[in-house]
Amino acid sequence: MAQAAYYEGNRTIRHGSGELVEPASGEVQLKISHCGICGTDLHIYHGAMDARVRMPLVMGHEMSATVHKLGAGVADFSPGDKVVVMPLAPCGDCSACAAGHSHICHNLDFRGIDTPGAFQSYWTVPAYTLHRMPEHLSLKHGALIEPLAVACHDVRLADVKAGDQVVVLGGGPIGLLVALVAKHYGAEVLVSEINPFRVELARNLGLAAINPTEIDLTKLVMEETGGAGADIVFEVSGSQAGASVMTDLLRTRGLAVVVAIFAQQPKIDLFRFFWRELRLQGVRVYESEDFSTAIALAAEGTLPLDELITDIRPLQALQSGFEDMDRGGQVMKILLEL
Amino acid sequence: MAQAAYYEGNRTIRHGSGELVEPASGEVQLKISHCGICGTDLHIYHGAMDARVRMPLVMGHEMSATVHKLGAGVADFSPGDKVVVMPLAPCGDCSACAAGHSHICHNLDFRGIDTPGAFQSYWTVPAYTLHRMPEHLSLKHGALIEPLAVACHDVRLADVKAGDQVVVLGGGPIGLLVALVAKHYGAEVLVSEINPFRVELARNLGLAAINPTEIDLTKLVMEETGGAGADIVFEVSGSQAGASVMTDLLRTRGLAVVVAIFAQQPKIDLFRFFWRELRLQGVRVYESEDFSTAIALAAEGTLPLDELITDIRPLQALQSGFEDMDRGGQVMKILLEL
Repeated sequence: MAQAAYYEGNRTIRHGSGELVEPASGEVQLKISHCGICGTDLHIYHGAMDARVRMPLVMGHEMSATVHKLGAGVADFSPGDKVVVMPLAPCGDCSACAAGHSHICHNLDFRGIDTPGAFQSYWTVPAYTLHRMPEHLSLKHGALIEPLAVACHDVRLADVKAGDQVVVLGGGPIGLLVALVAKHYGAEVLVSEINPFRVELARNLGLAAINPTEIDLTKLVMEETGGAGADIVFEVSGSQAGASVMTDLLRTRGLAVVVAIFAQQPKIDLFRFFWRELRLQGVRVYESEDFSTAIALAAEGTLPLDELITDIRPLQALQSGFEDMDRGGQVMKILLEL
Repeated sequence: MAQAAYYEGNRTIRHGSGELVEPASGEVQLKISHCGICGTDLHIYHGAMDARVRMPLVMGHEMSATVHKLGAGVADFSPGDKVVVMPLAPCGDCSACAAGHSHICHNLDFRGIDTPGAFQSYWTVPAYTLHRMPEHLSLKHGALIEPLAVACHDVRLADVKAGDQVVVLGGGPIGLLVALVAKHYGAEVLVSEINPFRVELARNLGLAAINPTEIDLTKLVMEETGGAGADIVFEVSGSQAGASVMTDLLRTRGLAVVVAIFAQQPKIDLFRFFWRELRLQGVRVYESEDFSTAIALAAEGTLPLDELITDIRPLQALQSGFEDMDRGGQVMKILLEL
């Protein structure tokens, strides 16, 4: 039986029967295997994006699937192929698209937010959104490809190099993936996170991690860099504390990377940007090459992806997943299995 | 008679006799011709840097001179040569120097701030600080080389290209020089400035300029860029208004350049940096190549440097120069002639 989870507003998820949308020409119908709960889904669940989304909404975009049925003219895939979806549909007409930045198109249709997503048994999408998974990569790990692609994009735009001193402010799923990817490329990485469970989990991933409420982060970074400061700071906390400390941590001409979604405008030490000729770069989602990199990295098998997954539940448990994320505590990445 | 202007604290300049410092080995004694009053000098005059400077202080670093006397071992210059001084003395030992950024050395000795400057008849400096002026470049224009080198540095680090849409927020001397240099390299430049005299002066320099209290700057920039936004915004106002509007004005992946010295930490729209993958770059002073570029540009004779100079006064008029700058109004660059 096809099932789906519907966001109906007011922190309510209704579990019901799912639709089967016949794939049109150029489309593919997928059978969803796993789908992770993203911070953006939680944000929608909180009602913060009610003005943007149409209810009832099927959320979900951190997914893996097998190809179920092909629309006309789709020659590159066969039923049973393991795939992930890059959930972006750019308009092709705006100035961002014209400049080659269609991943942050001004009229971007983000599947799972603006149109139905993957918290359902079957999902019909254009074939151009698909990325093939290697056969030996598990569908469970496939559900981490999308957030891993975010991390690959962020690390690529930051031009992280072997030997770089990198600090990641905020040790949630994206922060830890950024840290793991930067470390994979040979950077010296330190994670700063105030939640003790997440600090511990980061350490279990093999990352250096501290709690800045217990240790003086700036002093530590200065000691470890011979007083110079970090080459790159990823701001993934979205907090004033993070926005303040990032300028203290950076070496002359160092780079602050804004990964977090800031709900408030923080105060920023622009004098320090002037004084040390610091740089800042905003980064958002990913481009196709980042999906390819993420799949290749996951397929290598060296990233500790299992340890990021704190929970695998059935689709029916989406509401309880949100409630657990709200309580904080012992949660990192929750996957739903269909 | 050698003369000098001494800052003695409490908004007081004392005019007195100047010292003649015998040039040691590797040094050169200069006879100062012209020296401009910089915003930093005004800042010192206001007492804002009393904790840093040693009084009585001879300020002044926007200067031109002729070589008067050579110390031992100086072979590259002869008495009578027209020169300007790049007034930076880096320590050579700090992490910024080690990384090749000695112009923003952590222990930088800035001549005219940390050690005596050019508001005096004779100035003795190391020969390595000298840049030779072409014979046909006037000593009056030579006094604009230092602020012009700031503009060349800012435009170089921003990588301004022909056809770029550039907005300069703040039309003081540095803002106008940045605008002129960017325009010289083929950019489409718009200056935004709230002082009517400065708006008019910018237009007399051949620059497009508007008053954002009269015209909706964001609307204008969007109209002129087909809705895309500017490629580069130079923030030279040091104001919250400038720090706020810069993110509104930029195209996807556009660059904000922080030229101004922010006395307060402004609120910054980091969400917009994320959403449009904007970039920001702090810029400060100049490197030797920027001095060379500034001299070459000034020597070409195409920049309207005369129009920037609103006043030439004797050294005795330094105090009245500061007072006129404080009153605002009809002042752009004031030069002192020795």
